[in-house]
Amino acid sequence: MPKIQQERAVRTRHALLRAGAEEFAERGYARASVADIASRAGLTLGALYFHFRSKAGLAREIVLTQPDHVVPPRESQGLQRSVDLSLTWAQQLLVDPLLLAGARLVTEQDEFVGEGESSHLQWTLIHRELLCEAMKMKEVKQGTDVEALARLIVNACTGAQLHSQFTSGRQDLPQRVSEIWQFLLPAITTSKVAARVDIDPERGRRS
Amino acid sequence: MPKIQQERAVRTRHALLRAGAEEFAERGYARASVADIASRAGLTLGALYFHFRSKAGLAREIVLTQPDHVVPPRESQGLQRSVDLSLTWAQQLLVDPLLLAGARLVTEQDEFVGEGESSHLQWTLIHRELLCEAMKMKEVKQGTDVEALARLIVNACTGAQLHSQFTSGRQDLPQRVSEIWQFLLPAITTSKVAARVDIDPERGRRS
Repeated sequence: MPKIQQERAVRTRHALLRAGAEEFAERGYARASVADIASRAGLTLGALYFHFRSKAGLAREIVLTQPDHVVPPRESQGLQRSVDLSLTWAQQLLVDPLLLAGARLVTEQDEFVGEGESSHLQWTLIHRELLCEAMKMKEVKQGTDVEALARLIVNACTGAQLHSQFTSGRQDLPQRVSEIWQFLLPAITTSKVAARVDIDPERGRRS
Repeated sequence: MPKIQQERAVRTRHALLRAGAEEFAERGYARASVADIASRAGLTLGALYFHFRSKAGLAREIVLTQPDHVVPPRESQGLQRSVDLSLTWAQQLLVDPLLLAGARLVTEQDEFVGEGESSHLQWTLIHRELLCEAMKMKEVKQGTDVEALARLIVNACTGAQLHSQFTSGRQDLPQRVSEIWQFLLPAITTSKVAARVDIDPERGRRS
């Protein structure tokens, strides 16, 4: 494909993802309309079907690419990176339609993701890898079950997101995620390392 | 009201709650039909409206009375009671339609509970009280933010429930809840107390 057509295809795809995210965030998966998504994007229904095949295909893409949209404002590694991803997710969720859509679709994902796929698994793999790195850096206590810990981080973030939606319209989510780390750090690391890890709820905010 | 009529009213109410729970667990709040609920209970729509006024009233009753249905099989207090409630909830959820309905309705509760009401708040208050008791019994470290800890327990359980629904049809939920405690205990108590608290996933099962 010539370069100019490639660029147009990327822009079209991006416009559809964003329009889909807005529609899913507002109405949920079941009530979302593909015609309205195409119309929001200023594109035809044909363009939507060309790029994503179906409503399910579009929702699946949004849910399974959630981690791509979470870019912490600072460089970090190991345990601090795991913290930064969770805090950045909590901050960005308040303003990014793609993350808002992911949060809404998490409860309906059985309708469009395949077996063995889920946003939970995506995030668990990422946190597990960072925690393994943290263990090699001797930040995390030897013998810690990093797989179980990664699952717990993702579960606690999901629950916090769900409940903070009802209690504060999600405004307290960064604080709730910070609290998760406040309790986990003493269990998984030494007090010296815990003192060094920054869990300020504002840390995920872009300056 | 004469005693025989009172007993009949209690039975009718119970039948409606159970039929509503089954309908909500299967179809969610939005798609549930009051006519189908009355019919499942073998009662008239009039009986349903007499006891609960509306679909919202019935759903609200189910969500806000969730803790009443969680009865640990053993006596316990303080920290062990907080553990036992979470593990019993995880086990009973697999077989009790009222708890299954609560799990399904947790994501839709903004449609029928009032401001400042939610299943999250109900559970947080209960765990907070038990953790305060645990602190008085010197099971929990002085200075622990029991309010934040109670919120974290409830958030982690909610997230575990949501995700285990997709990964294992909820069969691994007791294991996931046990993992929450595996990581929290070292952070909130001494190793001596932690060794005494039983977090066996099977602990919540009725013999």
